[in-house]
Formats: sequence, C-alpha cells, structure tokens
Amino acid sequence: MSEDIRRVVLAFSGGLDTSVILKWLQQTYRCEVVTFTADLGQGEELEPARHKAELLGVKPEHIFIDDLREEFVRDFVFPMMRANALYEGLYLLGTSIARPLISKRQIEIAKQVGADAVSHGATGKGNDQVRFELGYYALDPDIKVIAPWREWDLTSRTALIQFAEQHQIPVPKDKRGESPFSTDANLLHTSSEGKVLEDPWEEVPDYVYSRTDDIVSAPDTPEEITVEFKAGDAVAVNGTALSPAELLTKLNELGKQHGIGRLDLVENRFVGMKSRGMYETPGGTVLALAHRGIEQLTLDRGAMHLKDELMPRYAELIYNGFWFSPEREMLQAAIDHSQAKVEGTVRMKLFKGAAHITGRRSAQSLYSEKIVTFEDDAGAYDQKDAAGFIKLNALRLRLLARRDRG
Amino acid sequence: MSEDIRRVVLAFSGGLDTSVILKWLQQTYRCEVVTFTADLGQGEELEPARHKAELLGVKPEHIFIDDLREEFVRDFVFPMMRANALYEGLYLLGTSIARPLISKRQIEIAKQVGADAVSHGATGKGNDQVRFELGYYALDPDIKVIAPWREWDLTSRTALIQFAEQHQIPVPKDKRGESPFSTDANLLHTSSEGKVLEDPWEEVPDYVYSRTDDIVSAPDTPEEITVEFKAGDAVAVNGTALSPAELLTKLNELGKQHGIGRLDLVENRFVGMKSRGMYETPGGTVLALAHRGIEQLTLDRGAMHLKDELMPRYAELIYNGFWFSPEREMLQAAIDHSQAKVEGTVRMKLFKGAAHITGRRSAQSLYSEKIVTFEDDAGAYDQKDAAGFIKLNALRLRLLARRDRG
Amino acid sequence: MSEDIRRVVLAFSGGLDTSVILKWLQQTYRCEVVTFTADLGQGEELEPARHKAELLGVKPEHIFIDDLREEFVRDFVFPMMRANALYEGLYLLGTSIARPLISKRQIEIAKQVGADAVSHGATGKGNDQVRFELGYYALDPDIKVIAPWREWDLTSRTALIQFAEQHQIPVPKDKRGESPFSTDANLLHTSSEGKVLEDPWEEVPDYVYSRTDDIVSAPDTPEEITVEFKAGDAVAVNGTALSPAELLTKLNELGKQHGIGRLDLVENRFVGMKSRGMYETPGGTVLALAHRGIEQLTLDRGAMHLKDELMPRYAELIYNGFWFSPEREMLQAAIDHSQAKVEGTVRMKLFKGAAHITGRRSAQSLYSEKIVTFEDDAGAYDQKDAAGFIKLNALRLRLLARRDRG
Amino acid sequence: MSEDIRRVVLAFSGGLDTSVILKWLQQTYRCEVVTFTADLGQGEELEPARHKAELLGVKPEHIFIDDLREEFVRDFVFPMMRANALYEGLYLLGTSIARPLISKRQIEIAKQVGADAVSHGATGKGNDQVRFELGYYALDPDIKVIAPWREWDLTSRTALIQFAEQHQIPVPKDKRGESPFSTDANLLHTSSEGKVLEDPWEEVPDYVYSRTDDIVSAPDTPEEITVEFKAGDAVAVNGTALSPAELLTKLNELGKQHGIGRLDLVENRFVGMKSRGMYETPGGTVLALAHRGIEQLTLDRGAMHLKDELMPRYAELIYNGFWFSPEREMLQAAIDHSQAKVEGTVRMKLFKGAAHITGRRSAQSLYSEKIVTFEDDAGAYDQKDAAGFIKLNALRLRLLARRDRG
Repeated sequence: MSEDIRRVVLAFSGGLDTSVILKWLQQTYRCEVVTFTADLGQGEELEPARHKAELLGVKPEHIFIDDLREEFVRDFVFPMMRANALYEGLYLLGTSIARPLISKRQIEIAKQVGADAVSHGATGKGNDQVRFELGYYALDPDIKVIAPWREWDLTSRTALIQFAEQHQIPVPKDKRGESPFSTDANLLHTSSEGKVLEDPWEEVPDYVYSRTDDIVSAPDTPEEITVEFKAGDAVAVNGTALSPAELLTKLNELGKQHGIGRLDLVENRFVGMKSRGMYETPGGTVLALAHRGIEQLTLDRGAMHLKDELMPRYAELIYNGFWFSPEREMLQAAIDHSQAKVEGTVRMKLFKGAAHITGRRSAQSLYSEKIVTFEDDAGAYDQKDAAGFIKLNALRLRLLARRDRG
Repeated sequence: MSEDIRRVVLAFSGGLDTSVILKWLQQTYRCEVVTFTADLGQGEELEPARHKAELLGVKPEHIFIDDLREEFVRDFVFPMMRANALYEGLYLLGTSIARPLISKRQIEIAKQVGADAVSHGATGKGNDQVRFELGYYALDPDIKVIAPWREWDLTSRTALIQFAEQHQIPVPKDKRGESPFSTDANLLHTSSEGKVLEDPWEEVPDYVYSRTDDIVSAPDTPEEITVEFKAGDAVAVNGTALSPAELLTKLNELGKQHGIGRLDLVENRFVGMKSRGMYETPGGTVLALAHRGIEQLTLDRGAMHLKDELMPRYAELIYNGFWFSPEREMLQAAIDHSQAKVEGTVRMKLFKGAAHITGRRSAQSLYSEKIVTFEDDAGAYDQKDAAGFIKLNALRLRLLARRDRG
Repeated sequence: MSEDIRRVVLAFSGGLDTSVILKWLQQTYRCEVVTFTADLGQGEELEPARHKAELLGVKPEHIFIDDLREEFVRDFVFPMMRANALYEGLYLLGTSIARPLISKRQIEIAKQVGADAVSHGATGKGNDQVRFELGYYALDPDIKVIAPWREWDLTSRTALIQFAEQHQIPVPKDKRGESPFSTDANLLHTSSEGKVLEDPWEEVPDYVYSRTDDIVSAPDTPEEITVEFKAGDAVAVNGTALSPAELLTKLNELGKQHGIGRLDLVENRFVGMKSRGMYETPGGTVLALAHRGIEQLTLDRGAMHLKDELMPRYAELIYNGFWFSPEREMLQAAIDHSQAKVEGTVRMKLFKGAAHITGRRSAQSLYSEKIVTFEDDAGAYDQKDAAGFIKLNALRLRLLARRDRG
Repeated sequence: MSEDIRRVVLAFSGGLDTSVILKWLQQTYRCEVVTFTADLGQGEELEPARHKAELLGVKPEHIFIDDLREEFVRDFVFPMMRANALYEGLYLLGTSIARPLISKRQIEIAKQVGADAVSHGATGKGNDQVRFELGYYALDPDIKVIAPWREWDLTSRTALIQFAEQHQIPVPKDKRGESPFSTDANLLHTSSEGKVLEDPWEEVPDYVYSRTDDIVSAPDTPEEITVEFKAGDAVAVNGTALSPAELLTKLNELGKQHGIGRLDLVENRFVGMKSRGMYETPGGTVLALAHRGIEQLTLDRGAMHLKDELMPRYAELIYNGFWFSPEREMLQAAIDHSQAKVEGTVRMKLFKGAAHITGRRSAQSLYSEKIVTFEDDAGAYDQKDAAGFIKLNALRLRLLARRDRG
C-alpha cells in the first residue's frame, strides 16, 4: 500500500472527508500534500478550504484554489450538449462531466509542483473513482494514484470521526450523525444518493431537493424565455448575450423557480451495480431541450439521425469516465462537424416542473414553408416524384414477398 | 394513369376527402370500390361512414367497418413501447404506428373480396403515402396501388369542393372554408399539421389542442398513479388489470386531465423536407416513461445500452414505413428477447403537463441495496476489486499517453 | 421531357453510348452540349474523345479533358481507405468512389461555362445514376439533370445503333453485336456486369478479367513488398516515396502480376434489386490490407472498434451516392481524427491471388513487448489487477444469474 | 488467498501446466480436485489425461472426459458463423468461441459433483481468464474461482519445472527448454502466440504452422468444392450431408491442403494490451466465405446491412467473453431471425492459400435476372421510377445546398 510517494495532489473540498484524507495521506505515506479546490459552481465558499488546508499543515504555495466555471461550461458541458447526451435515456450526466476537468487540473498542478501522485475522495463502489483515475492515467500514464477509500480501514462513519478527532480535524455538528444522503454539486447539477434514497420504491423526500423549487408551489403562470444559439452553443438568454457560465447560471435561476430538472433515476453504474439517485439539473434541462429545438430547424436529417444513433455510445463513454479517450474525441469530431450552422432562437415556456418549446427561428433554417405547404406550392415539389420514390424503396420488399409467399 | 382496375379497396374515413376519392375512383377507373373503415380509437362514430359509402353506391357486402383497437395497441403500440421508441429524440410515433395495421387489413380485405388494387387518401408530400404503400407491397407484392392525390388534378380546395358538389357529395359547412389545420387521430395520439402551424416560430394556438386539457388550468394537485408491467407490457393501472386498449384509454383519460403529452415539433420527413407538427399523446407519454421506469429496475445494463443504441434506427424504420421489413423484425426480436422479466410496478405523479416517476418495485429487480449501500455491506462487494478494474480499463489509455507524450 | 435547356455539360467517354447521347441531347433539347472527359486512370486514350466531340459539333472551348488521377486517389480513394470501407463485407467500392469526383467536376464546368444542365450516360436500373445525380444536386441544387436512358425510346441495342448510323456516329465493329458484358474502369478497379455474368451460378469466364493475371499461371514464388504509411495514407512502396496516383499505379502493377483483387459478388443495389458483378481491384486490395496492418500496431482499441462499427454505414453511404452529405462528412471527421499517428511500414507477400501480411513496424507503435510478454515483465503489468477487472465486469452478470436462477 | 474450498473442478488438459496446477490446488487449498478434459477437436488423445489425473490422486469418478465436438460446432461455431463475425476485421474468433462451452461444462460438473469452486490454467495477461470466469459467474453467480497463475509464485518456467519435479510430475523433454511459442487448438482453429512471435515485424517461422500446409507447395491446381446451407448453417460439402463437426472436419481437411486460413494478426486484448498471434482456421475460413456467398443471394438488403452494422459489436462481445450475456443473446436473436431462408449451394475454388466463390444458387434466391437485366425486361422495372427516387433522396441535400451556398 504505502509505496514511496513524495508529493501528492489531493482533490480537496475542505469538508470532513477530504480533510481526513489529507491527514491520512500525510501519515500513511509521509508525503507532502498539495490541495486543489475547484469552483465548478457548486455554490460553496472556497476560502474556508484554504484555511483548513493551512491548519492541516499544507504550505501556502501548495494550496490551489481555481475558479473553473467558465472552462467547465465551455469545454465540457457545451460539447456534451451539442451531442444531446442522455445516459440511459434520461440522465444529463451532471456529475460525470465534471470529473475529467478536475482530473485535468490535478495533473497540471502535479506537473507544476513536481508531484508524483494524485488522490481523490471517491469511494470504491462508485463511478467517480473510475472517472478520476481514467482521467489521471490518460493525461499522465506514470502518475501514481491513491484512492484512500479503497485502501484504508476507516470503513465506518464512527471510525472516520474518531480519526478526525484524534487529529484535531473539526467535525461539523451535522456530520456526527449519519447524514441522510450524499450529494455532489456543480454548475450543471446537484446529485443526491444513498441513505434515505436507497429504496427505489420510496418517494424522494422533499428535503432532499436543494436546487429546484417545489413543483406545486412554483409560479402559476408560465414564463416565456428565449435561448439563442451560435454554432451549436447557447450564447444568449432573453436577448442578453452571456458567457457560458453566466448563461448556465441564468438558466439555473429560471429553471429553479419553475421546479424544472428533477429526475428520480435508477441507473446502471460502470462498476456493475444499479443505484438510485436523484438529480436536479434546472438550467441543463432547459438548455438540452432548447438545443433539440434549434437543431430541428437547422440540422439536416442525415446529420441528426447519425447523431441520434451515436449519442447513447457517447453518453456511455462520458458516464464511464472515458472523456479523454480517442473514441470520445472521434465522436466529438463527428458531432462538432454537424454544428456549424446550428444557430438561431428558441422560445420556450417554463412551468411547474417542465419546459416546453413554443417556437424556433433561424437565419440558417432548413425548413421550407414553400415546399411543405398543404397549399399550392407553385411547383416547388412534384408529388409525382413520390411514386418512384416509393416504388424503388418497395422493390426489395416486393421481391422478398414474392419469394416468401411461395 | 388509368390502367385496368377491376376492384379497389379504399381506406375510407367517411370524410369529405375520401368521399371525393371514392367517387373519383369509380369515375376514373370505372371499377368497383370496396370501403374499409377502421376504428383505431380516433373517437369518431363509424356508422356514418357506412351510410356515406352506401349513398355513393358501394354494395353493403363491400363495406368493411372494423374495430381494431385491441390489435392496434397489442400488436403495434406495445411492441414499439418495449423499444422506448422516440423519433428524433422526442416523437412517440403515434401516426406512423397506425399505418401498417391499416395496410395489413386492407390487403386482407383485398384478398377476401378479390380486389386487384388498394387506395388511400394520403397526399404526395407526406410520410403516410410511403407507410401505406410500403405496407401494401410488403404484404402483397403484386397489388396495384392508387394514390389519387398524386394522380388527379384536384389540386386546390376549391376544385375538390366543386367536384364534391357536382357529384352530390355532402360538404360539411366547416369544410367550405379552409380548415385551419389537418389532423390524424387514433388511440395513441392526435396530430395536427399545416395551415396555422406552418410557421415554426408561431406558438400553437390553444384551439388546436383536442386531446389534452390546458396545462395552466389543469388540477393544482398532483395525481398519483401506478402502472404495472408483465413481460415488458403494461397490464394494469392503479391496480386494475386492463386489456391493452382499455389500458391506453385509461392512461389517455388520466394524461388528458393533467395536460400531458403535448409536443410542438419540427421533424424531418422521409420524403426529404422538414415539417412542423403538434402532437398530443397523453396516455402514450405516461406509458413510455413508466416503461423506462420499470426497465431501470429489471433490465440488465448490457441489454439496456444495446436497446438504447438500436432504438433510433428502430424508430426511424417505423417512421419511414418499414414496419413490415426484415430489419424491423430483427430489431424487434432483439428487443423482445430482453423483455421477459421486465415486470413490476411504477408509481408516478401526473401534474400540469408532465409525468414524474416517484418509485418502482419488482419481484424481478436487479437492484441490490445490499451491494450499493454506502453503509457496511458485509463483504457483498470488495472495493479493492475496483483498483484492478480501473487499472486494466486504463491500460490502453496509458500506453497511448506514453506514446503521444513524445 | 424537353424543358427549356440552354447548355448542358455531358460526362462524355467518347464511346458509342455517350456519342449517341451527345447527338440526342442536341436534337431533343436543341441545346449546346459541353463535353467533359476525365482521366481517372481507366487506361484509355482521351484525345480520341476530343476528336469525336469535335466531329459531333462541340466547340473546341467546350471540350474539357482533365487528368483527375491524383485528385481521385488523394481526395476520394485514400479517405475511403482510412475507413477500411467494405460494402457488404467484401466490395472495395471502386465504381462508387469515382462518381462524386465526376459530379463535382461537371458542376464546376457548368458554372464556368454558364451551363444550366448536366447529363450522364448511366442507365435507370443502376446505382450510378443515383450517385451522379445526388452529387449534382448536393453541389448545385438548381441544376437541371438530363438522364437520357430514363427518357428516350432507344431501349434496344438495335435502336441505339440505328440512331448512331442515321447520325454518322461511327459504330465500332465489336459494338454491332451485343457486347458480352458491361464494364467500368478507373485507377482503383475495373467492374464487369451483365450479360454472361447475369447467372450467379455460372463461373465468370476467363476473358472477362482485364486487370489481373490468371491466378494459376501467376508467379510460383511469393513477392515480398513493403508499404509505408503517414497519417493513415500510403506514401511509399518498397521504400520509394510516391504520389497517391503513382502509388496506386505501382500497387496495381504488383497486384496484377499476382492475380490479386478478383471478386465475384452478388450485391444489393440502392435501387432495390440484387445484381451480380465481377470486380478487379488489384492495388486497392493490397492497400486495404496494408492499412489494416498498420492500424493494428498504431491505433488504439477504442478508436479501432468505433471505426469498425461505423464502417458499414460509411460504406453504404458511399455505395448509395451520399459522398456529399453531412453524415458522410461527419463520419469522415471521426475517422480522420483517428489517423494522425497511423504510420509505419507493413511487409506483405503477394502470391497466387492473395496478399498476406508478414510484418509491421512503426515509430508510433502501441504494441508493448514488455507488457505482453509471457516472460517475466519486471512488473510492467500486475496480473492481480485482472482479478478485480473480471470481478466488476462479472458483477451485473452475477446479479442477473442470482435473479434468474430463482 | 486460500479461502475455504472443499472441491474444485479444474479444466485439465493433461499437459505440464495443468498437472502442476492440479497438484498446487491440492496442496494450497487442501481440497479435492475434479478434472474435466474436453475433446473440442484439438487433435490430441484424451486417455493420457485420465491416466495423469489418476496418478495425481484424482478419484476415477472425479475424472470427466467429454467429447464436445458436435455441441461445439452446432451451438457455438455455427451461431457465430451466422453473424459473419470477424474481430477487428480479420479474426474468426477460434479461441474465444471455445471458452464459453468449457465454462458451461465445468459448471455443470461442479453441480453434479457438488463442487464449490472451479479453476483454469489461463494466465493473468490474457483474454481467456476473462472468458472462462465471465462464463462461470454468469452460469453460477456463487461459484468460487481459482486462477492459479494470478495467485501463485511460480512466475518463471524454472520454478514451474522445479515444482513439477518435486512432486513427481513428469516433465516432457521439450518442455524443459523454453517452448518456442504457446498454442491453443480446437476444431475451428489453432492459435500460436508468444516467444518467437512477440516481435510483430518478424515473419512467422514456417515451423509454427501446424494446421495448414505450406502455401507455395500446395497443389498447383485449384480444387472446386460446394457447400450447401439450410437456415443459415452449412449442412453438406460436395453433396454429402454431414453433421456440424463432421462438416467442419471435412472443410479443415480441404482447407489444410490448400494452405487456407493463415492469419498473422496484431490484436487488441480486452485486458488493454496489444498482442501478436498467428491463427490457422482452414475450414472456418472457407465456411465464413461460403456463408457470405449464400447470404448474397438469399438475404434481403435491409437484413444484411443491419447484420453488418451489428457484427463488430457481436464479435467484440464474443472476444471479450460475454457469450452468456443478455446483449449477445439479443444480437443472436436478431441474427437468427434473418437466417430462416439462407439456404442453397455455394461453389468455391480453393487454391494456394485462399478460397474464391465461383457461383451460388438457391431455391430461396432474391436475385431476379428478369429485373436486373441490361436487356429488355418486359416492364418488370420502370426506369422512370428512378427519377422520383433520386429527386426525393436529393431533396434534403438540395435544401441544404441552397442554404449553405448563401
């Protein structure tokens, strides 16, 4: 277990668990710990993390606190939205998509400070350990990886708190008892898992929701909004141009008020088990639908159907942690190629837990009222062409029927 | 055009258009017309169709009126639901799935009455002509097909009405003016297209909706329901066992009250153009989500992901009219193979335009609380296994990184 | 039929059929005909085509004769080889891949000379009409297309020859009788179809082969060659750097001597029927295998498997004539992304009708003897990792078995 | 390591390695060992294995020797052939497909004798460990698995031989030195890996080949054969009806004489590394091509193209060891559905290392000479239909071009 480690970069939230890990790393590996705390829009103060790291003996120059919100949305969330990615038909991949960015930044810091190892606080049952570590290895094949939850003997909450107390790590009051569930949050979503959620028949209790307002008490009037796109990415809401992170923040506010983006899901983890989670993705839910809406008008059928067929694989790759893989990049190349003219405006109504498209327009529209009209089309389309089209599409089926009728 | 036809089976709704077609067929082909009117749950009386056919000179024994609702749901809607089929990510294929059944019955009748041709009232711009005719040819490769809209010169509404008046075909008052849009209905959905809907930026006017109540004025309290499944098909609602058509009827009532299943869509037709439609699929929307819910608990990951990857192709085949094709049947064989143990109960809330899963349980559940738990699992899962799992999944990425790092 | 045409660009081989078409166009449409004759490596003199065009009254400045061999191989054959494209498992798409280039050049010429129409000599039963015309329309949506074989009444060989004689078009002696089969040739392959080949049980007669030497009388000693790749494309043979067309020419010579690349195929045409053809692709067959060989060493598994899954669709698109489509371009973007480091040398033996890989090496190899060795690997790979890898891959299967054993 | 094991079923070849394993299991786990030796057509006597097992103290009633050749070909090789399965474009999966049958029989024996564990002799670097163990777990989720190569400390050949000598296990002379490569054989193929083959640039030495005659010295005259199919499976060779194993044996003889089925491959293992192997699949190579040949004539295009798209995934599943998985079974259901009318006769020539189709015929042919002919077809196909077919296929491309030309 304790191979020779000199310096390790830890993904450090400042919470109880990663504080214990920090101390445990120092003790177990007798190595220097470098902390990395990222602002991905999880909505927590980061400066307390700095203070805790200092208290635990991390050198000031070894405390990294980065605001990655713009990079997160621009380089991870948006490319995924271009793909209309849904895991198992429903999940917008809010946790999955944040992991590669954390891995990437950890490896960058490791290079900068000359660390030979990285560490994270994900457990041995989940997907996140896989996502972190596949990211680490893909970006630095010789990095050493320490996954304390798979190594140590602090297997119960009590043991963890005892360790904390022994080492003067402050234990928040509400952490003494069992917390009712486990969460992860970033600008795209908040996930909740475990404990009270572990019975998939039990309804998610109201107090689990943190990012979306209650659907019943949400406003009784639909709110109309517009989302504007350029090259497949959202660039403005209600006519106001916004940066990627600003835009997602704005859609989160709007989605939250209307209770949009709640998902109660039983999903298949990469490690082979089913788990039940509750996701809140207010802005992402609105954005994903808006993207579909603008593609409807501006994307060729061949491109759209190919995208739809590739999507489940693409989503699976992200879910399983293969963001930094040749095959994900190949799919992204195909998807991005299709998005050059995906631009225009989608109008939606937000109301009581759902978003609804009510209109879309684009300077790059492929929709032709002239051709589709039930009215006289002045020869734009010759209905007689359909006869030959059907005849040749039917030819193989007729040959088959002639044989099989026998 | 007027090749030698002796007897033709016409898909006859009894409305103005197919009445005109009936007369036009008699005139143009000097042939005997047999009418076929199907009850697919479109919610209209069928006896008036009999009366009109008689008035237009069809022999009583050549008037076929069939209640196909159970067959429609059992043999067409349900198999499609097993696949979680969505065309272009959103559309539940309500029109597409009804066409093959009509084709099938028309060909059966043609054989029964010794007809050498079939005819339908679909226009030359749409998908339905393709769906009808691919069905005809796949089931009887030598049948002759007459598609009046592609042949005749009644290209304007005025011409059509003139023809009707000349031939004593009653023209309903509201048909004299341009109807504001064109519709299709069956037990699964109602679609509306054309006219006021042709500008995809214009919001769908309230009066277009006929199958779902207004979302804003829908009940202010969520309604909790349960849907029970056996072998991938829904068999009961709220604990009451129902036949396929009864069940969909029941879900339609529930969905309607809560304004569920409205979809404003711009889609890509098989004939190469984009069109804008509005679909109302109240029960189908609830059912599709419920099916996902029960699969979450009872379907293996490998099966689910394969289904998700095959689905877009499967949906495209149905949309394009290839229900009676070897490839659709092959996909169905794969899908059906996965459904044997897809059984159990899904609990949902219906509220203000959307359905939400709130719980699912099954005697065939693959979810294991014992394994997934954050608590002590008593050795059900060895977290150390994850290390090797990640290492070998990472191996190729590391070899790649070693090479590419240069 | 004879809509108003002013000037038409005809794909003109100089043979009997396109000479008749030239005259027929002048007569039927009373329009100016511009001829375009391409050297795609079919191995025929092109200057006679100029002479014939002049004789038929085409203005010298309206006779276009282009050597497109380098563009053909570089921009069409090579991208397709990167994909390992095989239609229906066996066919290297030699005819299909030449059509888009001809379409492209015809449209360019049409723009240059201000033509409003294009025309080709493909029949109404084949794939080539589709490939030409989809290319035309994709590159100039408003171009008019004249397909004489679908329009005229010269439906028998006799009628065609009569027309030729009436118009002083020289009829080669061997064209007076029925030619025994129909061929198409370019630098990639020669195809033969029809007539004596129409019974798929009859063996292809020896005299049909024109591009490959007889397998039995081919050299009795294998010939060893090397093919070198850069970025997925072949760049040298036997150590000599060659341009794309030179390289394919060289491989054609080598393949020919050893009787390599003969394929007797029954294939499915896009227009719905099966046809039987014989293809000779000497250099292409060697090249395709060599490309697989170098990918084996340099391409990541994830990339390779994704390519393999996308390939049938890609091949179908080319076969069906959708080269200039968004979906073909998307797939190409994905494929090309994978090829950056596909470089190195493949050694092969050519012998009696087949090529065999005997070795491959690359500075970009991902093969690691250190890791794969059965010998002691000094810790490069920890066999114990496999235990966890298998355990977690098996987990879902075990959960399934526990349920289903019931 | 040494958890409590009572009785273990070992896949036992009788060779040095599994003899050592047998003894090691007895020593390490102090358990009873049951041996299972299968005749899969590897061409070795099995009775010596019985004798060795007895010598090593296995009870007579615990020695299982089974002839599984017919089951192997009928239930494993043939279903795979129906799929035209090729891993990474070239490999006929000869090793992969034998593993699930061995796993299945081991589990059956374990149940019969009340064993609580199974064991195999595959190393920790290869695919076979995965294939065996996924099979075990899928068929008995609670079975214990012992993989000695991943557990013991006999990491060098010398250590292994020392252990053998210490325990009176006879060491064949040629095993004292390093054997020049490692092999696996069954009725479908022989594979060779390791040692002299580990440099992928070095040509495979002649002495490695054991199942195919030298290509150069093979007969100078092609041999014509026929293969007959029913429902997708080969049933006769040269007019003689044969059982599955007899048929493959016959094709092996024929293929061997003509040096057919040699494959020098660098492949991607599931465990993440590339390896180089040499495969000899004489009969299988002939059979795979023959199957393609009969499908060409009898399989609908839609079915064939779907099969081609599903094939790489199917092959990957078998290669990776997921024979007993829902997704492999789903794909098999789809594939098998397509094979009902895949019947008829294929004629081939075998010559100097390759097989060539020279004809195919079938009572279930979908090929229509009447329709495809270049001659007058008497109206079987209306060439004018192609115009509409092309127009509507082109429509979306024209709309795209109009937009993008801007």
